[in-house]
Amino acid sequence: MLRYIFCLFLIPICFYSQDSKIIESQIASFYNHSLVNGKSYMWLEHLSNQIGGRLSGSLNAERAVIWSKQELESIGLDKVWLQPVMVPKWVRGNFEYASIESSAGNSINVDICALGGSISTPNRGIRAEVIEVKSFDELKLLGKEKITGKIIFFNRRMDPKIINTFSSYSLSVDQRTRGAEEAIKYGAVAVVVRSMNLINDDFPHAGSMYYGSTKLKDRIPGAAISTNGANLLSSMLKLDPKLKFFIKQNCQNYPDVKSYNVIGEIKGSIFPNKIILIGAHLDSWDLGDGSHDDGAGVVQSMEVMNQFKTLGIKPRHTLRVVLFMNEENGLRGAKKYAASLSKNNNTHLFALESDAGGFTPRGFSFESSDSIFKKIKAWEKYFEPYLVNQFSLGGSGADISLLKSNGTVLAGLRPDSQRYFDYHHSSRDTFDAINKRELELGAASMTSLIYLVDIFGF
Amino acid sequence: MLRYIFCLFLIPICFYSQDSKIIESQIASFYNHSLVNGKSYMWLEHLSNQIGGRLSGSLNAERAVIWSKQELESIGLDKVWLQPVMVPKWVRGNFEYASIESSAGNSINVDICALGGSISTPNRGIRAEVIEVKSFDELKLLGKEKITGKIIFFNRRMDPKIINTFSSYSLSVDQRTRGAEEAIKYGAVAVVVRSMNLINDDFPHAGSMYYGSTKLKDRIPGAAISTNGANLLSSMLKLDPKLKFFIKQNCQNYPDVKSYNVIGEIKGSIFPNKIILIGAHLDSWDLGDGSHDDGAGVVQSMEVMNQFKTLGIKPRHTLRVVLFMNEENGLRGAKKYAASLSKNNNTHLFALESDAGGFTPRGFSFESSDSIFKKIKAWEKYFEPYLVNQFSLGGSGADISLLKSNGTVLAGLRPDSQRYFDYHHSSRDTFDAINKRELELGAASMTSLIYLVDIFGF
Repeated sequence: MLRYIFCLFLIPICFYSQDSKIIESQIASFYNHSLVNGKSYMWLEHLSNQIGGRLSGSLNAERAVIWSKQELESIGLDKVWLQPVMVPKWVRGNFEYASIESSAGNSINVDICALGGSISTPNRGIRAEVIEVKSFDELKLLGKEKITGKIIFFNRRMDPKIINTFSSYSLSVDQRTRGAEEAIKYGAVAVVVRSMNLINDDFPHAGSMYYGSTKLKDRIPGAAISTNGANLLSSMLKLDPKLKFFIKQNCQNYPDVKSYNVIGEIKGSIFPNKIILIGAHLDSWDLGDGSHDDGAGVVQSMEVMNQFKTLGIKPRHTLRVVLFMNEENGLRGAKKYAASLSKNNNTHLFALESDAGGFTPRGFSFESSDSIFKKIKAWEKYFEPYLVNQFSLGGSGADISLLKSNGTVLAGLRPDSQRYFDYHHSSRDTFDAINKRELELGAASMTSLIYLVDIFGF
Repeated sequence: MLRYIFCLFLIPICFYSQDSKIIESQIASFYNHSLVNGKSYMWLEHLSNQIGGRLSGSLNAERAVIWSKQELESIGLDKVWLQPVMVPKWVRGNFEYASIESSAGNSINVDICALGGSISTPNRGIRAEVIEVKSFDELKLLGKEKITGKIIFFNRRMDPKIINTFSSYSLSVDQRTRGAEEAIKYGAVAVVVRSMNLINDDFPHAGSMYYGSTKLKDRIPGAAISTNGANLLSSMLKLDPKLKFFIKQNCQNYPDVKSYNVIGEIKGSIFPNKIILIGAHLDSWDLGDGSHDDGAGVVQSMEVMNQFKTLGIKPRHTLRVVLFMNEENGLRGAKKYAASLSKNNNTHLFALESDAGGFTPRGFSFESSDSIFKKIKAWEKYFEPYLVNQFSLGGSGADISLLKSNGTVLAGLRPDSQRYFDYHHSSRDTFDAINKRELELGAASMTSLIYLVDIFGF
């Protein structure tokens, strides 16, 4: 610690001001390169439009593995390899359908999608009365008697008042992830969950659900309903609490299949055994093409490596890009990667994940000790010209979070979050929702942070 | 000054902390209200979809005047009135067409639009060789001999390396505004200008051009070409410098017509003669519906007034909203408004304009003395929770800029600028490019700043 303090005083006096100019100029070159000659947008065009949605275990996921490995090889990394991992295989099926059937015999179609991991309905579908709830506590209050045989409709909105939409998401998403598991306890026959979306539209948003320890035979289907559909169902229930909801879907869980994390690295010139990891997840949901979640993060991470190679910067530490498989419905790639590190592994100095969309970067959030964060916080000034200077303590990314216990300092790119849930996990998450400059600014910001970590360490 | 310093010390000690909490809570209520019950998005839906593009002197501009006056009356302002102003009337006509005709006789259509204020081509169109230039200096170097009888193609790109896209715009827009005036000096027969757009697409972007003191009989037509069209023309010119460009457009200038600034106010309870102005421009270009430029600013300004009324806050100073007519091609509304103030008028304490799109607000820029800016800068902390805390010295807005000479402190809302020029003045500037939350965050930020100016003054 004393040494640290000594250094902090020494650097400004001796050569910091000189260094500071060099650093500023280097960072400017990252932004210039990314905005003029960067590959991220072109890469994403291919990943989104030529490959498309790439749910774990799908053919497209395998195509994404092959393609990203080839591209990493093409930019001349020192080493590129695949790390095998068994991943769940869930297939949406070719049929998902729902309607609200009022007592008068009228039927109105509403837009739904099966939730990832859900079982199918019986072939004839499920037709039942609906109970609308906002929380698991309400289920408890209603009890088994009132719920048995009914469809539970979880309709707690994402709170629009929360400025960071990810915070709003995390306060609502339990309905989707655990709704079925909870409703099963009271005898529900299916769950329908309001889409995690802050705007009113007709697009259902997919995402994972889990049955916990519920036995196979006791499981019930889960689906997401579009926000417009949820609003309609809710208002019709007020008029006619006895209305029936009909739902039919034929998704299916298959045995695990083999897939891969895609990994590439540039060997460090001074600390080859100390790794700085840049990561994102290669898999996506299947409704859109996963441009924001997480195609953007994938190509930004690749672009960090590309910039070091193209601009001829030899990192002191080893830079390693990891494109994780199966973040969306299992985190198997992340688990496999973390497990492959030796116990008490301290080779990973730093890990940065981009998994919050390809929008204008606003800053980074960090998982670290206060003293290290204080040091990082001093780098904000380098990001001021690019308006990416909101550094805060907070989460980082699901894939890298497992490295925390090894003492690795973690960070997540924090883009503007306002539009993210308009697209997230829905068929709207497509390449046309990406702005080239915003994507490229994110890539340049990541390269700049990695560069600072590489030259300063902690 | 001493009094100021005294106050600055006094306030923190005596009641600032208390006040600070009240202020924070009040600002939170602005954001909550805007995001949950705000009218800005609904208003913009009407202005964009029910009225549409509203170029000065058009029927739609008059409809926008009538509608906005009615809406301001409906929220219960103390006074709403129209300020008459004569505005230019330029009509695009029903025909604009261009093609590249290579020597081999092949013809390729390219997307153009007449620039605002341009004269029409002759009925038969103009067919001529093309000289591509990047600057007015190049015109000079080429000289009259080489340019006479040719079409000048201004093809200097907006610089993608500049982070603030408005700065990039201001470095390129002279080609559009003054290109014809300059090219006329050397005998050009028309000018075609690369659209002010950072991405490659097929949409020409309109905007004003001026002939300066050029006599009527010497004027030549001006048009914008899409960035894809510009790229094509440029690469074809490299292959065949003798190719011909054909352009035909039948736009027309008419005599000035009467229009209006729409003004409304809430009388100040303590300083009724001191005015805090909130402004935007009601007119727009005609290709899109002007949702970002400047429908967003219009409804955000209206929402500031609405929040004061709805939340029952009685301002100490008079709050005045001004929806200026004719910012786009004449600034006549702004000039009329400024001229209507008595000489050496110091009634306007502060003026805030929103005219940079409806994207996520990042902060404000101010035109003020350093000492006042220092005071304002201390308010950044109130905007931190909303990530709107980038306060800088800089421009404000075209409409309010004329108030500067009276000593009025000026400010402009500064939203994220990355996407703005994808839409600006083109047919893409439509309601679907607006994100509800981003628009509402802007309105709440404006209300919060106005509130702070009202309680603290300068």
